[in-house]
Amino acid sequence: MHQPFLVCLSSRLALFRTTGVKLKPSFFRSPTGSTTTTVVGEKFHHHSWQREFASQQAVPKAFVWGSNKKHRDYKLKAQLLENMASDPKIEEVLAPLRVAVKEQGDLVRKLKADGAPEIDVKKAVNELKARKKVLEDKELSLAPSVASFDRARMEDLLKRRFFYDQSFAIYGGITGQYDFGPMGCALKSNMINAWRQFFVLEEQMLEVDCSILTPEPVLKASGHVDRFADLMVKDVKNGECFRLDHLIKNHLEKLAAAKDATQALKDECTDIVIKLDGMTKDEMAAIVTKFNMKSPITGNDLTEPIEFNLMFGTQIGPTGLVKGFLRPETAQGIFVNFKRLLEFNQGKLPFAAAQIGNSFRNEISPRSGLIRVREFTMCEIEHFCDPQLKDHPKFENVKDVVMTLYSACNQMDGKSAQQITIGEAVGSGLVANETLGYFMARIQQFMLKIGILPERLRFRQHMGNEMAHYACDCWDAECLTSYGWIECVGCADRSAYDLTQHTNATGVKLVAEKKLPAPKTIEVTEVVPNKAALGKVFKKEAKNITDLLAKLSLSEVDTIGKNLADKGEHALDVNGTEVTLNGDMIAVKTTSKTVHVEEITPSVIEPSFGVGRIMYSLLEHRFQMREGDEQRGYFSLPPIVAPLKCSVLPLSNNAEFVPFVKKISTALTSVDISHKVDDSSGSIGRRYARTDEIAIPYGITVDFDTLKEPHSVTLRERDSMKQVRIALDEVSQVVRDLARSRLSWADVEAKYPKFEQQEASSK
Amino acid sequence: MHQPFLVCLSSRLALFRTTGVKLKPSFFRSPTGSTTTTVVGEKFHHHSWQREFASQQAVPKAFVWGSNKKHRDYKLKAQLLENMASDPKIEEVLAPLRVAVKEQGDLVRKLKADGAPEIDVKKAVNELKARKKVLEDKELSLAPSVASFDRARMEDLLKRRFFYDQSFAIYGGITGQYDFGPMGCALKSNMINAWRQFFVLEEQMLEVDCSILTPEPVLKASGHVDRFADLMVKDVKNGECFRLDHLIKNHLEKLAAAKDATQALKDECTDIVIKLDGMTKDEMAAIVTKFNMKSPITGNDLTEPIEFNLMFGTQIGPTGLVKGFLRPETAQGIFVNFKRLLEFNQGKLPFAAAQIGNSFRNEISPRSGLIRVREFTMCEIEHFCDPQLKDHPKFENVKDVVMTLYSACNQMDGKSAQQITIGEAVGSGLVANETLGYFMARIQQFMLKIGILPERLRFRQHMGNEMAHYACDCWDAECLTSYGWIECVGCADRSAYDLTQHTNATGVKLVAEKKLPAPKTIEVTEVVPNKAALGKVFKKEAKNITDLLAKLSLSEVDTIGKNLADKGEHALDVNGTEVTLNGDMIAVKTTSKTVHVEEITPSVIEPSFGVGRIMYSLLEHRFQMREGDEQRGYFSLPPIVAPLKCSVLPLSNNAEFVPFVKKISTALTSVDISHKVDDSSGSIGRRYARTDEIAIPYGITVDFDTLKEPHSVTLRERDSMKQVRIALDEVSQVVRDLARSRLSWADVEAKYPKFEQQEASSK
Repeated sequence: MHQPFLVCLSSRLALFRTTGVKLKPSFFRSPTGSTTTTVVGEKFHHHSWQREFASQQAVPKAFVWGSNKKHRDYKLKAQLLENMASDPKIEEVLAPLRVAVKEQGDLVRKLKADGAPEIDVKKAVNELKARKKVLEDKELSLAPSVASFDRARMEDLLKRRFFYDQSFAIYGGITGQYDFGPMGCALKSNMINAWRQFFVLEEQMLEVDCSILTPEPVLKASGHVDRFADLMVKDVKNGECFRLDHLIKNHLEKLAAAKDATQALKDECTDIVIKLDGMTKDEMAAIVTKFNMKSPITGNDLTEPIEFNLMFGTQIGPTGLVKGFLRPETAQGIFVNFKRLLEFNQGKLPFAAAQIGNSFRNEISPRSGLIRVREFTMCEIEHFCDPQLKDHPKFENVKDVVMTLYSACNQMDGKSAQQITIGEAVGSGLVANETLGYFMARIQQFMLKIGILPERLRFRQHMGNEMAHYACDCWDAECLTSYGWIECVGCADRSAYDLTQHTNATGVKLVAEKKLPAPKTIEVTEVVPNKAALGKVFKKEAKNITDLLAKLSLSEVDTIGKNLADKGEHALDVNGTEVTLNGDMIAVKTTSKTVHVEEITPSVIEPSFGVGRIMYSLLEHRFQMREGDEQRGYFSLPPIVAPLKCSVLPLSNNAEFVPFVKKISTALTSVDISHKVDDSSGSIGRRYARTDEIAIPYGITVDFDTLKEPHSVTLRERDSMKQVRIALDEVSQVVRDLARSRLSWADVEAKYPKFEQQEASSK
Repeated sequence: MHQPFLVCLSSRLALFRTTGVKLKPSFFRSPTGSTTTTVVGEKFHHHSWQREFASQQAVPKAFVWGSNKKHRDYKLKAQLLENMASDPKIEEVLAPLRVAVKEQGDLVRKLKADGAPEIDVKKAVNELKARKKVLEDKELSLAPSVASFDRARMEDLLKRRFFYDQSFAIYGGITGQYDFGPMGCALKSNMINAWRQFFVLEEQMLEVDCSILTPEPVLKASGHVDRFADLMVKDVKNGECFRLDHLIKNHLEKLAAAKDATQALKDECTDIVIKLDGMTKDEMAAIVTKFNMKSPITGNDLTEPIEFNLMFGTQIGPTGLVKGFLRPETAQGIFVNFKRLLEFNQGKLPFAAAQIGNSFRNEISPRSGLIRVREFTMCEIEHFCDPQLKDHPKFENVKDVVMTLYSACNQMDGKSAQQITIGEAVGSGLVANETLGYFMARIQQFMLKIGILPERLRFRQHMGNEMAHYACDCWDAECLTSYGWIECVGCADRSAYDLTQHTNATGVKLVAEKKLPAPKTIEVTEVVPNKAALGKVFKKEAKNITDLLAKLSLSEVDTIGKNLADKGEHALDVNGTEVTLNGDMIAVKTTSKTVHVEEITPSVIEPSFGVGRIMYSLLEHRFQMREGDEQRGYFSLPPIVAPLKCSVLPLSNNAEFVPFVKKISTALTSVDISHKVDDSSGSIGRRYARTDEIAIPYGITVDFDTLKEPHSVTLRERDSMKQVRIALDEVSQVVRDLARSRLSWADVEAKYPKFEQQEASSK
């Protein structure tokens, strides 16, 4: 449902305010917290003033990414849902905060309804956001802790086992760029393959793979050239750049934390930080001046705020004349191929196209690990449909899926997110249409399938002020992490905006033909040429004249009719030469025509996935410690995305084990099960711990009993650490079925004898 | 085996001549034909003077890529192998050409042996290449035609069904950039998944996924900043750029083709064109002057030749101070992560790392469709091993694989390629070592698995003049297409070059520890501090002194020893302050130490795959026409790479068919078989033809017999067009087994009753 009381007044990013540029950029934004980045427990700050070469920093190298405070626990909270919020004690604390939000929400609505000046509305919205943030922080602080999370320990594991790490570290490293090692790469490609299976293949989408280098006119049309920018200031002496909102936030937080800070100063700082996100360039410049801010590195003066376009520019070809950019999103590649895709689909709507690929954004000061980076992989879907027909044939399949929805209304009314089936949400108009709802449900199913925890997943509706004026409705799938709620998937109904922009820029009609319910008779007034008469007078030129006559606009046709009636002739400009046409040569006639189709510009529903952000959330959700042994961290990733499915461990380096290990490895390869043989020295327990660290769900151990006939091995499950004894010939099939979810571990435990313990040497 | 008579004298690309930059760039090069691009039959020229925006050309839009001459047949030849060449009539023609090559080959060897000046050697090599090309052209012209190939028809099909097409076409398009549509994208991702399965998983390689944006110092060390360039000239008035070798070639070919051209002029032109590839900048400049060449577009004068670096440059971060490039190959990402990967492999050699990803080269005037493009996907492997141990444990598995090898010797002796097992080739020293041989055999197995035709695949050894001085041996897997032989996979033993370069640039040792066969005793001379004495005198500074003493070089230690002996003291510079140390504080001692390991820089064997080139070759190899129906082109792609595995076609739009179609579609999805339902109108034959066009290997048709119990359908195989009748419940399993090569079509025909024909309406 379009929220009529909240048309686009100001975007969260002031720079996107007045224009049609898609709000998806906000998907990789939310720098200072936005409405959603609520940091839970210990607040975490990276070193803010990173130069591009990370090693040039004052920060010790080991800390160029990751926590600089070791072993600080974050209390991870489950979201406070309505049923939990009904605890009277908690509600007592929250009630006044809720009232404060609602009052302000009502004020915003009233101002809008009264047609108040934009500046007043904007101020009211900023205040609304500030109140919302206070409420949300309090809610989370009162929510029950679901886990204690040690980010430093997780990051240490991620680096040590090379899931991912900073790019070009031996050259000092570059901020905002990461290389995925074997385990991270396998996890990522498993996630992507699962995505392709779940969306592209199951929904029979048209997958494309388009160019990354994009010529300027394409991104001019999409709005990115003019408006895809962040504000920054530069050190006037050494040219060092600072993202303006980060600079202000850090400066004010430091001021507020000073021992001699007055309560008034503290309050002022807090107030500004909360409202930063909605401020204009001028407002922010005024704050820089008021607090006399300097470069935090050198103390030098700073320039006025500058709009810095976040796209990487380059030259295509050797002349230096064709400006291009690295694409900031994959979606434009789909839009510019719309005609080909429609044709591939035999002209029929609806259809969905999808693309998996890298995009690039030249962040001013990237931080927060994988959450804000300069190159990243996206999976995007553009579902094209008739604007009048947004129902979905498969909606029935998902209508009972229960989702946690945090509606714009609830956000304005100071209420919490609510649990509701997607069927009810669409039925009540909370979610705009079936297609949007269908994709939201599918997004949730996918996220849960790869291992995101349901209690740390919600869908937050964009409020009007975050929504570009063309977007009918937009929901972000957000994951709760130690950085707060982070946007991982955007799901927007973008109406006809993008196709219209490219049509306007190129003159190529990006439309579909829609069969009319019944043929329609329309009146057509046109100039009918007498070809014989024209040919006689104009010879070869006659064809140009008839071609021209066929292209006339309605008003030109009217003029000709008038001239013929009044003067008996009309002077026509044919490529610069004037020719005189009379009533023998042409006539203006109005005829009835029957048409069966009309041209429509399709609407687009766009689910857009940030792979790195989902991966990071997944790693946090699945990071575990063995009870009673803090050293043994591991990832309980579901088999579908686990980098490797199985380990094969000989109990010791006894030579008799070797042929059995080889045989198992060959058998696993033959059933396409990725695995790792670990025949290194070290106790079996230590090696299990090593395989747990890289999330291997199943482990096969060859021991002295294996040597006896009938040959058998042990099979161990990572999360429970339970083991069974199983025949050698059977084990690869069982692991395959487990890895493909055709068999559960409970089934295996029921069928095969339990195995109690292994000793390092039974001889 | 290193070919000692052929050390690096001049690279094919003059620009890579004297330096260590890897020769892999040649892999995406070979512009004017090089030694390998032998165009067979009708020679094909794209419009050479394309500006970046394709539509700005004089060329009609439809021809911005693809053939501009419609329906010209290329006679596709099988390579002339030794056994075929033994035909006495053919040999009679070729004999004098062979002798001419051999004479020149011998001359080159003699010049080298005599230590002749490099310029003389180079000239002789150019002449050798010219003679080789004449021989190879003649060989191919005499070889039996294996097929007639209509490139225009294939390209028309590729565009019409959107396998791929020019990027940003609605904006006029950009040369050298392509978008893959649904079928091309699926083909590409199937090829990549097959590659990952075949190499990464079966060989347990460490796959990584590294950054595309690369800071300058990394590519400075690799040699790309200084030497990864092509020569170009510019129109002095409008700045338009022309690749110099292309310009000369086109100009001279036009001259030679003129009606009034004398035989002498024709010969001179041909001679220059053949030798172009080995020419220096000055030689080419002289030719431009001699023939008074102008811009072929405007007739304006041209600048002197300019070296144009082929990397796309950009700025990382907002300051504009950190220069970066889009990577020109994926390999460097692996090298800079060597330490992490070695550690991941628990410090052990050998291991292989792999990367799949996009690379970018700013070609001056890209043409030849997918063969020379500005962004492309590569699959690269870097196998790190002990330089002394290049045997391979799995070589035994491949030793009997028969390969077509075109050795450097044979190329110099005027002989043809030969068929030989890889075991023999390594045994005789033709292929340098087992690991290189193992990868060559695996490359061949992979290429055949995805559908490359064996008679159009060969491995050509780089001649010394193409090989950088660090490369011990290098073989290119080449596919024969209508463009001639094109390099699709490079396979090089690159010794320790890359790791050494990055070590030199960063000071970070990229080495592995190798256990010595027996512990070794070495003499170590070092300065031994008396910590108590130092502490007493220097207090806090003492630690800095002892740290410094531990880092001294051998010659510095010697100096200290000498000073202590001569003067009783030594003056040491500690961070700018001089301190005087006497014999009480330090002593120089020589002791024996036992070491168990030595540090080695690993050798690298590098197989490097160009996905676009392989895909193009595959499409050419598998493009077919139905006999007697030239309109019905199709691709006989193997199921493993076919974009979709199965079609589901209701015989007509009879409503009774719908539930059966749905049921089959669901069953196919449940066994992960990608498929397409085509329920459009059109005869069943027409729809079969449409599915054949997009290479769908199997087709299920629901007809009137399906409605009867027991329900059954027909299953059709694309290449033979044979059909069988099969039970509805069974068909999805059968298709799955066919698609995974667990079942052959012959098995299916043997088991199920043949089905003769379907009628469009049996009611």
